[in-house]
Amino acid sequence: MALTQVSSNKCAGGFQKVFEHDSTELKCKMKFAVYLPPKAETGKCPVMYWLSGLTCTEQNFITKAGSQLAAAEHGIIIVAPDTSPRGCDIEGENESWDFGTGAGFYVDATEEPWKTNYRMYSYVTEELPKLINANFPTDPDRTSISGHSMGGHGALICALKNPGKYKAVSAFAPICNPVQCPWGQKAFSGYLGSDRSTWEAYDATVLAASYSGPQLDILIDQGRDDQFLSASQLLPDNLIAVCSEKKIPVVFRLQPGYDHSYFFIFSFMNDHIKHHAKFLNA
Amino acid sequence: MALTQVSSNKCAGGFQKVFEHDSTELKCKMKFAVYLPPKAETGKCPVMYWLSGLTCTEQNFITKAGSQLAAAEHGIIIVAPDTSPRGCDIEGENESWDFGTGAGFYVDATEEPWKTNYRMYSYVTEELPKLINANFPTDPDRTSISGHSMGGHGALICALKNPGKYKAVSAFAPICNPVQCPWGQKAFSGYLGSDRSTWEAYDATVLAASYSGPQLDILIDQGRDDQFLSASQLLPDNLIAVCSEKKIPVVFRLQPGYDHSYFFIFSFMNDHIKHHAKFLNA
Repeated sequence: MALTQVSSNKCAGGFQKVFEHDSTELKCKMKFAVYLPPKAETGKCPVMYWLSGLTCTEQNFITKAGSQLAAAEHGIIIVAPDTSPRGCDIEGENESWDFGTGAGFYVDATEEPWKTNYRMYSYVTEELPKLINANFPTDPDRTSISGHSMGGHGALICALKNPGKYKAVSAFAPICNPVQCPWGQKAFSGYLGSDRSTWEAYDATVLAASYSGPQLDILIDQGRDDQFLSASQLLPDNLIAVCSEKKIPVVFRLQPGYDHSYFFIFSFMNDHIKHHAKFLNA
Repeated sequence: MALTQVSSNKCAGGFQKVFEHDSTELKCKMKFAVYLPPKAETGKCPVMYWLSGLTCTEQNFITKAGSQLAAAEHGIIIVAPDTSPRGCDIEGENESWDFGTGAGFYVDATEEPWKTNYRMYSYVTEELPKLINANFPTDPDRTSISGHSMGGHGALICALKNPGKYKAVSAFAPICNPVQCPWGQKAFSGYLGSDRSTWEAYDATVLAASYSGPQLDILIDQGRDDQFLSASQLLPDNLIAVCSEKKIPVVFRLQPGYDHSYFFIFSFMNDHIKHHAKFLNA
């Protein structure tokens, strides 16, 4: 599992790096970004995984979210992978911005022609953490996860499907109930086929209804003027209703005036890092 | 002088906007970004102008520098124009990354075929401030200027050529002595012709030697591992030497490990906003 360094920039006292590697899950070269805070030079640090949204690469979060100063302050390593396999030469992979390249949806595909490469769920929960823990000064017992939009969906399902694995979870404008929204229905029917019961294994609202692990504290920020909220792509109400019933602690902040962009994410990133730091003891 | 709004995103409690207008100086459509802090909703605010570096547009600073939280905190409006005229159909304008489009160098060109459009000095010191003061809740008596690389050169010369106009100036990795470096020599010979004496009117080191205005407090951050520092494009030592002799207050911070990128700018942006806030009484 050799890593090739693509770039390294000193940032906020630590280093923002990008690496490339041959992924065994995805059977292609994958890039991921890793921020190493100053504390990583002398000891083990907790890790927050960040899952990006539709069309993003490993670059969007590290250039636009403004996470590094807070990560440096709290001594948290942040890992931000790409959002899908790339360059697999699968027919149709570049036809849509919300399916295929840039839109892996953090599921393990079961349908042809996707199932060989589109295994982002196993990549972000298994292969990537192993790689990170083997190559960087991490404390594997202190891991958390966050994300935006499609990546918010990813963060929520990774946490809900793996009780205890992630100490905290947060999301910006997550797709909360993908089986009920156009984006999720398109992605899941393509990657998972027509049997809707298989979709529910990757739906945060369905997963929350049967969650029985250790307490998971969820922080969600949602722009009230987000076009995708009004287009019923995100459906946070459905998740909140289930969490309330199941007594899963959720802080849900509907932020007036904010949209779906990285200007929104940047505005509240420090709060999210602080949320993760609290549960990571960082 | 009508403005057309290109985009508006709520950010850090205020609004990050981009506008387009017909520039009389540059004889083309120009875009600029403006950040309006929450305080701008109820009263007049000071303004900091940000001049970007080679190849940048009005987008780079607003998406990558992480300035909005600090600007919101201190109640400072930040204006970030594009770096040159665009789409003027001048022969050769797109041939180099360091001359022509994206590389206006903040001078008023005197040579054909540039002199009709390439008047970035008058644009950023006269036309743009008039436009900003007419359309936004600014306090024109509290104005400052900052920039990166070619834009750091721009910020320094604007401040040094207009004693008292700017209450403070700061720069990241500025081109400090353009008459002595390859970038400056290429730009100045193209825009200003072969008479080197005309170049000196736009050289911060030369201007500092004859500066006699009110006290100007300069903050400069420079990455020690900046490839353009070692390539002798920036030459900060020359400026520092003159400022020391002339007793112009400069805080020059050589930052070990940092390069020329926005990761460097992001790391110290809060310090620069604080520097400006001090002299803008913000």
